[in-house]
Amino acid sequence: MRADEDGPFAKAAVALSPLHATAIADATALQGRLTKPAGALGRLEALGIRLAGIGGVCPPPLPAPAAVAVFAADHGVVAQGVTPWPQEVTAQMVANFCAGGAAINVLARQAGAEVVVVDVGVATELDERPGLRRHKVRAGTADVTTGPAMTVDEARAALDIGCQVAADLVAGGARCLVTGEMGIGNTTPSAALIAAFTGRTAAEVTGRGTGIDDAMLARKAQVVAAALVLHADAIAAGPLPTLAALGGLEIAAMAGFIVGGAAAGVPVVVDGVVANAALLSAAALAPGVVDRCVAGHRSTEPGAAAALAHLGLEPLLDLGLRLGEGSGACLALPLVEAAARILGEMATFDSAGVAEKG
Amino acid sequence: MRADEDGPFAKAAVALSPLHATAIADATALQGRLTKPAGALGRLEALGIRLAGIGGVCPPPLPAPAAVAVFAADHGVVAQGVTPWPQEVTAQMVANFCAGGAAINVLARQAGAEVVVVDVGVATELDERPGLRRHKVRAGTADVTTGPAMTVDEARAALDIGCQVAADLVAGGARCLVTGEMGIGNTTPSAALIAAFTGRTAAEVTGRGTGIDDAMLARKAQVVAAALVLHADAIAAGPLPTLAALGGLEIAAMAGFIVGGAAAGVPVVVDGVVANAALLSAAALAPGVVDRCVAGHRSTEPGAAAALAHLGLEPLLDLGLRLGEGSGACLALPLVEAAARILGEMATFDSAGVAEKG
Repeated sequence: MRADEDGPFAKAAVALSPLHATAIADATALQGRLTKPAGALGRLEALGIRLAGIGGVCPPPLPAPAAVAVFAADHGVVAQGVTPWPQEVTAQMVANFCAGGAAINVLARQAGAEVVVVDVGVATELDERPGLRRHKVRAGTADVTTGPAMTVDEARAALDIGCQVAADLVAGGARCLVTGEMGIGNTTPSAALIAAFTGRTAAEVTGRGTGIDDAMLARKAQVVAAALVLHADAIAAGPLPTLAALGGLEIAAMAGFIVGGAAAGVPVVVDGVVANAALLSAAALAPGVVDRCVAGHRSTEPGAAAALAHLGLEPLLDLGLRLGEGSGACLALPLVEAAARILGEMATFDSAGVAEKG
Repeated sequence: MRADEDGPFAKAAVALSPLHATAIADATALQGRLTKPAGALGRLEALGIRLAGIGGVCPPPLPAPAAVAVFAADHGVVAQGVTPWPQEVTAQMVANFCAGGAAINVLARQAGAEVVVVDVGVATELDERPGLRRHKVRAGTADVTTGPAMTVDEARAALDIGCQVAADLVAGGARCLVTGEMGIGNTTPSAALIAAFTGRTAAEVTGRGTGIDDAMLARKAQVVAAALVLHADAIAAGPLPTLAALGGLEIAAMAGFIVGGAAAGVPVVVDGVVANAALLSAAALAPGVVDRCVAGHRSTEPGAAAALAHLGLEPLLDLGLRLGEGSGACLALPLVEAAARILGEMATFDSAGVAEKG
């Protein structure tokens, strides 16, 4: 299933190859010769081996500098009362991202990562400003409780935009990509997509998002359940109609970004329930993509755990974050870099003259 | 209980004050005004508040650059067959640390942290080399199954050395300290100390260390149990006799280092079962120290979880590491730094013109 036979996303999905077997074998052997007990670096060892497979060489390329793309869009479903935040916060936070004052800016600066902000569907018109890429597909999705969030063509357009942003960032020197997003209400379409792709119920995957009360949570789960019923035909028709019917413009763009980064040969670090929904969509459209992704952080949203379990990914961090923006993934970047540096920089028993165990 | 009425450790233990209440109140209020939903940065928020309390100011001082001290010593208990590694690996790894080839060197370089290696009790004489501080108290401990590991005076000496290393590093510009260690066999005294300080049984806190088989694990647990019986009087006499009877020279030095760093007003990041045993010892000698420590990583050793639960600390990372050296703590440094930067650098709702939730 491809988005558009001729677009960047379709080309990237076709370009995905299996991880490099020789690099994986070399990295596995090298882990056993480094001056540490076998397995003593825990999950960093397997991650380093996978980075070698992604990069096609052992030791793996340093996954730095990284670049964070924050995709922003609005959601018609906010009319159903699923969030206490006013919709204009999406545009206000875009301004905050561009001014460098949001959490993702702080965390990216620390990690030495560039932040680009991409308007793929904010409800209001945004002025040009440094750091903002204006690729609005439409001014927010439609309300999923009354019709499809977007058309299949609009979903394709968002996939292509995300894919192209990834290709541009890698062409500009990024060696690791981080998915970010902003969109008031976007944990609702994320829950719907996660339910559709994992087979879980609305109640199992709907969470409190930015921190809603019990009454609003019950309403939100009802909205997700209603959307799944209304769009049952689209869900049955395949991943692209599913993404169009239930998704968000930033979610589709993130799915494209993930596939674009994977096709460009760099690891893609995802976090948060919205990114997890995007990765499920990406994996349904281009299954080879999952091996090239690293789960940065486990969101407290129940849908995040469901999505990661379905994908077979174990996140590096579990710090109780539920912010989005790419914050959890950005916090995981030093761990990804460390996994690569271990293989590239540690001495071996032989080179260091250290005795092995008896 | 203090180690020596006149030494650096005794002075540092007395100098520990409660965390700064005004800075904590200011940081708590500031977390609620930053452009994010309340609590959305999870455990980083509480950590940032605690860093303000440690540093005495809000926003907290940046906990960078960090410095890692790797304390090295040998253990007479290796005669009991508790590890498959030859004792000379301690000295060989000291050489590897000084040459920059060990995991802790790689991870510290990435974090921009200095590494100093301190011989407090390696069995063989070590030549001078760059990066090595030679403060040998004795050439390895005695076998705890036949007598006390060291005398109380030797334990005091090691506490003072560790404390002085911390003071020197902070005087040299370090704004965060990381505990590291190397000592073949040192998970055995660590298990004994953890059992003594937490009241758990030898079987509950003894683990596989660098990766031993079932037969060796059973023997190791028997050795720990025997040491607890042999030294019951010392354990009953208080923390300093306990540390002397069961401990290691590097463990005592780490306890001193933790108290020295805490007294100097910087956060101390600990990891690993050996560091956890040192922190338990430090907390028994100077209870105020725990608030000033950050648990970096949960070792796979069962004693680590027991020690952290006893201390009320939840580690930032849980990546399956069981290497020691300070590796897990070093990996957590970017998270500690991020917690401080969030408070120092993020915009507020007011300053960024972002609407709050309805």
